[in-house]
Amino acid sequence: MEYEEGPLNANPRTTSLGDAFELIRPRLAEVERLLEQQIGNGPPTVRDAGAYVLEGGGKRLRPAMLLTVARLLGYEGDLDIAYAAVVEMIHTATLVHDDIIDHADVRRGRVTANNRWGNQLGVLLGDWLYIRSMEIALALGDQEVMRLLSRATVEMVEGEILGLELKGSMSVTRDQYLDIVRRKTAELFAACCTTPAHFSPAHAAYREPLARFGRNLGVCFQIVDDLLDVTASEASLGKPVFSDLREGKLTLPFILLLPHLDTERRGAIERVLTTGQLTGASEEQLRSWLERSGALEQSRAVAEGFGRAAVEALEPLPDSPERRLLAAAPTLVLNRRS
Amino acid sequence: MEYEEGPLNANPRTTSLGDAFELIRPRLAEVERLLEQQIGNGPPTVRDAGAYVLEGGGKRLRPAMLLTVARLLGYEGDLDIAYAAVVEMIHTATLVHDDIIDHADVRRGRVTANNRWGNQLGVLLGDWLYIRSMEIALALGDQEVMRLLSRATVEMVEGEILGLELKGSMSVTRDQYLDIVRRKTAELFAACCTTPAHFSPAHAAYREPLARFGRNLGVCFQIVDDLLDVTASEASLGKPVFSDLREGKLTLPFILLLPHLDTERRGAIERVLTTGQLTGASEEQLRSWLERSGALEQSRAVAEGFGRAAVEALEPLPDSPERRLLAAAPTLVLNRRS
Repeated sequence: MEYEEGPLNANPRTTSLGDAFELIRPRLAEVERLLEQQIGNGPPTVRDAGAYVLEGGGKRLRPAMLLTVARLLGYEGDLDIAYAAVVEMIHTATLVHDDIIDHADVRRGRVTANNRWGNQLGVLLGDWLYIRSMEIALALGDQEVMRLLSRATVEMVEGEILGLELKGSMSVTRDQYLDIVRRKTAELFAACCTTPAHFSPAHAAYREPLARFGRNLGVCFQIVDDLLDVTASEASLGKPVFSDLREGKLTLPFILLLPHLDTERRGAIERVLTTGQLTGASEEQLRSWLERSGALEQSRAVAEGFGRAAVEALEPLPDSPERRLLAAAPTLVLNRRS
Repeated sequence: MEYEEGPLNANPRTTSLGDAFELIRPRLAEVERLLEQQIGNGPPTVRDAGAYVLEGGGKRLRPAMLLTVARLLGYEGDLDIAYAAVVEMIHTATLVHDDIIDHADVRRGRVTANNRWGNQLGVLLGDWLYIRSMEIALALGDQEVMRLLSRATVEMVEGEILGLELKGSMSVTRDQYLDIVRRKTAELFAACCTTPAHFSPAHAAYREPLARFGRNLGVCFQIVDDLLDVTASEASLGKPVFSDLREGKLTLPFILLLPHLDTERRGAIERVLTTGQLTGASEEQLRSWLERSGALEQSRAVAEGFGRAAVEALEPLPDSPERRLLAAAPTLVLNRRS
């Protein structure tokens, strides 16, 4: 790959992740083409539903991280594009199955695939994306990367299962929450960041720091995601607010809020958690409780802590525009509005 | 592995597949232990629901084929046991997701996992079984076998998707039916039979005949399965009769019956296919139409044809008790009552 001079946008004041990824945009476009091609090889309904899901305006954050790290390590081949498509397919498989599990009707402002094509196709589309992504990765021939990706995928599924086991529970601890977040989000982030360090044995020493960067950034990202669910507007989220609570999931802001509440208010939250309806408490009330208790601020501080740990993990890596871009990622994640 | 003298039961008059597999029973028990151990490593609900599903009285046909071929080829290690567990996990994943897709409440006389634990866990349990099976296979280190298994799994999922696309359709052709059957059943049979021929390069020449054997046996097996759905009793099936038709699936007996029927009777079948209710025609009527038209006999003849092709595929293999057992498998499959 040629070295490109150009705008970095790695400035922490950059507010859009999209702008920040200017550096790797041409390669992201190649990932997009590969994804289209892969989906195009599937049976007719995979072509339709798969294209629909992939077009759904995902941020392509995982491919972008993988491509950025590959560039940081001076990688000049095309394996990064292939693996970037693989991780996006794995991620998409999880989204499709998650929407079935959460009975979600909208995601990113659009009707979900399970809503449009039915749960039956949703199950099979997710299966197809999972197994095809493994098959594509396998064809690339690197067993270690293959292990990395399949391990991250098992962790994701187990994270979802642990989350399901705790659905409707008022006694989820902060540690349980963080364990689920690590599995269901952070391990794939870590795998994305580590994969390019397997392209050359010379980069073996960077694997561990890059995994640590990805894992911490992933936890930071998911906490911010859970914060947005309680602070953002339906318009900016593209789905109803307080979705997590309504789906029976106690996220960090609520875990930190509960000790501050009296029995009556705890009961109101439990009713949302178990009935899926905002009856006992209004959106405004929930927001005001979260704010006044300091639970929002504390959650944000936890996310910031993981963001800082991500930046620190990059220290052993040589300074470069790409390293600076990665180092800016936690700030961008913390500043995102949707 | 030591050579064991003992009853072969490879006599075509043997009516139980279980008896026939006496030869590999000790190794099947080891597969069972490995499956229990793998499930035991999962999260709590995987341990419960996974154990429940695996205990469900499956015939362990795929592991048995794999172990028999390994023995036929004189293999003496333990890879066969590990891969046998892998293929049973893949097969079980498909069953779990199929039961969600077909809204099935009972399988093999027991409540299905989706009925007992809900569709949400069903989706995740199937995912876990799929991805963990891939991860276990990966750890065994043979990339070619890994490719074989992931290809067969993609075929299975695509077979299910094609089946779903044709759900409720009265115009399914015999070729479409056979293509779906090959993908959703026969390719995994073929992979099971070929896997042991990858344990030693000396057996490379047997791969193709063994794949042909497994593929033809698999098609034979699935046609018999579809025949039993219309001929057996609910008690022996462990699920309601005419399940396929009620689930909107036109199987070979009906594909062969339709050209013999007048508009009214075709309409009656279409109503079952689209409403899921046996209203327009009773079980007795459907059975009598199938019988008098010759559709049952013809379907059986098609199954027998694939059975014969399976036996013929074994010709290049050296004669041995194991080859005779494999050669008897089509007859056993054709004679099975449940």
